Amino acid sequence: MTKGKLFVISGPSGTGKGTICKYILDQRTNIRLSVSMTTRDPRQGEVDKVHYHFTDHDAFRNLIEEDGFLEYASVFGNYYGTPRKQVMDWLEKGIDVILEIDVQGALQVKKSYPESILIFILPPSMEELRCRITGRGTETEEAISRRLGAAMQEIEAVGKYDYSVVNDELQKAVDSVKAIISAEQCRLNEEDAEFIINKYKEDL
Amino acid sequence: MTKGKLFVISGPSGTGKGTICKYILDQRTNIRLSVSMTTRDPRQGEVDKVHYHFTDHDAFRNLIEEDGFLEYASVFGNYYGTPRKQVMDWLEKGIDVILEIDVQGALQVKKSYPESILIFILPPSMEELRCRITGRGTETEEAISRRLGAAMQEIEAVGKYDYSVVNDELQKAVDSVKAIISAEQCRLNEEDAEFIINKYKEDL
Repeated sequence: MTKGKLFVISGPSGTGKGTICKYILDQRTNIRLSVSMTTRDPRQGEVDKVHYHFTDHDAFRNLIEEDGFLEYASVFGNYYGTPRKQVMDWLEKGIDVILEIDVQGALQVKKSYPESILIFILPPSMEELRCRITGRGTETEEAISRRLGAAMQEIEAVGKYDYSVVNDELQKAVDSVKAIISAEQCRLNEEDAEFIINKYKEDL
Repeated sequence: MTKGKLFVISGPSGTGKGTICKYILDQRTNIRLSVSMTTRDPRQGEVDKVHYHFTDHDAFRNLIEEDGFLEYASVFGNYYGTPRKQVMDWLEKGIDVILEIDVQGALQVKKSYPESILIFILPPSMEELRCRITGRGTETEEAISRRLGAAMQEIEAVGKYDYSVVNDELQKAVDSVKAIISAEQCRLNEEDAEFIINKYKEDL
């Protein structure tokens, strides 16, 4: 049986990567979303093991020492990370996995699991991204500038990705990501080639 | 403007690659089929520039000397080849191009144009390929064995391809090739990444 593939979907905040992932998971079977682990407290309505695996600092640090994360980061004094084991178990069973994480996290995953497939979700333009952030009406002008600067810094890492998808129209972006997932099922590596050749030779 | 992409669709005879190409061309706009050049005589119903560019030996040899082919071969005393110029003109204009050729030709194209994307169409099994060849009812047992041996030799080159698609159900195979074409529009190379970064920087 062939192993599953790991798709990492990331991009600046405000590009709609979460919505795209939700659509993919709704429209495709045999693909799972990896749930992150965090040490921060659950917010109202958040469910353990659905939104996050909630844990404490000691347990998180122990898992770091055991090399138990595909990626992790510390933000405002709390840890966030992708536990390695669940993802690897799914892949071994031939199930594809989606990770929805930020750019720093995605680059860490590529290092710890080079076969992962990195998809960058781009905004239609910086102007449009500004509109989306401003539209929420909750941010100061200074905060908006800082967020756009951060987004630009993230976009500069796009060269380390395998694919980019512009989220201009949501359904088109979803279709592109679905096409990437389908195409990657057909993509050949050396191992696959050997497997195919032997299969047809036995059959001859 | 980004350049078009060159998709090379090949595989053993009897796998249905011609039918797949026909469906792709019917269902996608902005993609063209490259027409081969040959020195053999037109058969009943064949139209110049539609089925082949028909030409003579001298003209063909001159074009070989000018490095005017992406690939060519001599079969039973006649030349067959893919003229380079028409394909390159389309790619420069941002139009994707499909080549439907045999495995030897595909490997030559990869050498002369490394950016080309090679898709191998596989039969569901050797047994099924035998049925398809036998079904035509025109071949001797010896000819069938020879053809299956040739098919196996071609399959052994699958490792040099980017993708493989099993033609089990036609529409599924067509959908897979369409997904590969869509996904490749999103695939990043270094040049694309630089272009994207500059676009968003100017916009900031």
